[in-house]
Amino acid sequence: MALVVKKFGGTSVGSIDRIKKVADHVARARAAGDDIVVVVSAMAGETNRLFGLAGELCEAPDARETDVLVASGEQVSSALLAIRLGAIGCPAVSLLAHQLPVHTDAHHGRARIKGIECRRVFDALRSQRVVIIAGYQGVDEHGDVTTLGRGASDLTAVAMAAALKASACEIYTDVDGVYTADPNICPRARKLKRVSYDEMLEMAGLGAKVLQLRSVELARRYNVPLVVRSSFDDELEGTWVGQEDRSMENVLVSGVALDQNQSKLTIAGVEDRPGLAARIFGPIAEAGIVVDMIIQNASADGRTDVTFTVGRSDLSRALELVRALTSEVGARGVRHEEQVAKVSVVGIGMRSHAGVAAKMFRVLADERVNIEMIATSEIKVSIVVNAKYGELAMRALHDAFLSDDQNNAGPETL
Amino acid sequence: MALVVKKFGGTSVGSIDRIKKVADHVARARAAGDDIVVVVSAMAGETNRLFGLAGELCEAPDARETDVLVASGEQVSSALLAIRLGAIGCPAVSLLAHQLPVHTDAHHGRARIKGIECRRVFDALRSQRVVIIAGYQGVDEHGDVTTLGRGASDLTAVAMAAALKASACEIYTDVDGVYTADPNICPRARKLKRVSYDEMLEMAGLGAKVLQLRSVELARRYNVPLVVRSSFDDELEGTWVGQEDRSMENVLVSGVALDQNQSKLTIAGVEDRPGLAARIFGPIAEAGIVVDMIIQNASADGRTDVTFTVGRSDLSRALELVRALTSEVGARGVRHEEQVAKVSVVGIGMRSHAGVAAKMFRVLADERVNIEMIATSEIKVSIVVNAKYGELAMRALHDAFLSDDQNNAGPETL
Repeated sequence: MALVVKKFGGTSVGSIDRIKKVADHVARARAAGDDIVVVVSAMAGETNRLFGLAGELCEAPDARETDVLVASGEQVSSALLAIRLGAIGCPAVSLLAHQLPVHTDAHHGRARIKGIECRRVFDALRSQRVVIIAGYQGVDEHGDVTTLGRGASDLTAVAMAAALKASACEIYTDVDGVYTADPNICPRARKLKRVSYDEMLEMAGLGAKVLQLRSVELARRYNVPLVVRSSFDDELEGTWVGQEDRSMENVLVSGVALDQNQSKLTIAGVEDRPGLAARIFGPIAEAGIVVDMIIQNASADGRTDVTFTVGRSDLSRALELVRALTSEVGARGVRHEEQVAKVSVVGIGMRSHAGVAAKMFRVLADERVNIEMIATSEIKVSIVVNAKYGELAMRALHDAFLSDDQNNAGPETL
Repeated sequence: MALVVKKFGGTSVGSIDRIKKVADHVARARAAGDDIVVVVSAMAGETNRLFGLAGELCEAPDARETDVLVASGEQVSSALLAIRLGAIGCPAVSLLAHQLPVHTDAHHGRARIKGIECRRVFDALRSQRVVIIAGYQGVDEHGDVTTLGRGASDLTAVAMAAALKASACEIYTDVDGVYTADPNICPRARKLKRVSYDEMLEMAGLGAKVLQLRSVELARRYNVPLVVRSSFDDELEGTWVGQEDRSMENVLVSGVALDQNQSKLTIAGVEDRPGLAARIFGPIAEAGIVVDMIIQNASADGRTDVTFTVGRSDLSRALELVRALTSEVGARGVRHEEQVAKVSVVGIGMRSHAGVAAKMFRVLADERVNIEMIATSEIKVSIVVNAKYGELAMRALHDAFLSDDQNNAGPETL
């Protein structure tokens, strides 16, 4: 008999009908003999509705009170699921964050979990009940309601699985697994059977929105095996996310990700002296703008171009900050490109195989796509291209690395 | 500087616009120097919506989980009001039942308050904050969410006022006070300036829905002065509900109430022997049916008719139970009248003045209204009439006892 944590997102509990289906699934799993702990998100749309109400009251709603407000969404869905399970003869009990408790720090809206007390969960499991945990929420040391950030019900699920030493944490979602690329863009995208935490982290960080980044980090730290599965079809096998194993190493590349919401800024001809980067990026970080890729080209005349990318919604603020700096850093001007796309190739296999970057450049050259920026990490190569070539580049790279006859390739094919 | 508890019902916080108006009112009261504790209901319609969701999942939703579900309504409205108060420069903090805590027994859906811890309230008041309490909810000894019954935010408010030793508990509602009768039926109904707890209890019990019965009982027990006021117009004076004082004794009758949702049953010709009433009313009580008036006429031949009234929605169940008993109690038959009306005249003044009943009968005889049942208590006389005469009887009694020139009458006018 295994202890399994199952997490159902907002779409999976988005209607009375969907809640009934989730209850049927959970009851079947319970009947099969497993101990089941379920973590639920708010019903689809509910969290946005609640944030919307707060937004109608003022521009910057108090963070503590906003947490009290939006935590009600998961309270509703967890009670509804427990009600339905009871009605179909599968005793269940909902537990809110303060009832465990899920201890967090006091950073409202983005609290971090400090610990979870599991006594009530184990008591309920011993009395043959399914336990339903309201995701996304915690309590600080004063007993005040906190929330963990948007999409953080995944995090609650992984943290529960770690605290309970569950045998797996199953994430049920509206896709049926992790794909080698977005199937809407790459018709030849395939579902992965297994993927490593590190690869998943790179892909999540690149905008593949199947799993929340922090949950994958937490799963890796506590070695919680994750399964991403369809909440609409129990028959479909999902994708396992876990530690690397030998079979994975034979796979050169696991996925190709595309981020089309990037903008590029270039500060041209700045004086190349120590402290320059801090001068430029200090104010940008203080403004809460996330900078993704940064490139600095050393030059012969003591001047250099600094190029970096930001999310498109931050472009105008970033431009304003950078323009205010131009004279201070002795720059000749600021250029920007509003719409660029970042395409990334991810795979732990590239650790031991040189040449992934070289093959990428060749593939894109064949397609006549100009590469504007390049950044590499141990298991990832990212390139920035003009936004209009983003999808083309992704498809070309996907098919070059990931069509069935191309992967499992040794270095000789490079 | 006084400590005042203000309770706002569902209509008063039923929209973003209404919440803004409540916040303005509270901020003005705070600026005038009082310490303010606010108790809120869920936004109008929200509790019904949540019960409706549970009802879509099964016929008899689990009581513990239903409480978790519906308690979210007050959580939302209390956070929204706190957000708005903060936004207009009046620092506020919401507190949920488990954060005080409001201790209750474990009878989900109809829990009774056992005690309230006030430390967090006093701490917040000391730090110059308005405190917003989510009404209607509590926690049992295991920390499980409980609710106090429909309309019980009034009860939360009175209990808070008693625990905090507040100088008053102001109930803001969509009417502007307690009237001598329902103004929709009696055009000459007047708003009362003052009314005693006992009179209010009789009127609340008779279906005058301004205040919840249990809250008036609690207010009387702890001598909490209540004020019923309009949440739409700060200028309007409301009605004070408090202990009797001498000025009240000069008023013979304070109000006339009408309940049109009654049905009448008669068990005819039962054998008149000890234990009969228990045999009849035991099963009815067990079925949770509330019996209001009971009349038994002793008869010469050792047989008697037992007549009683129940709420109309309980009629068919009551009939079924009573018919099953007919042979056992040796009855000759069961008659019923689906639609009867109960009209009651209430006033502490009638304690010391005989003849209220006599005057009632004369007034109704003048109107050719047949009286089917009569019941009297110390400060109330109720009569049952055919439903079609209910409103006529109420108007006639109101105008006979309560038109301006009739009240303040000594016994000589009877």
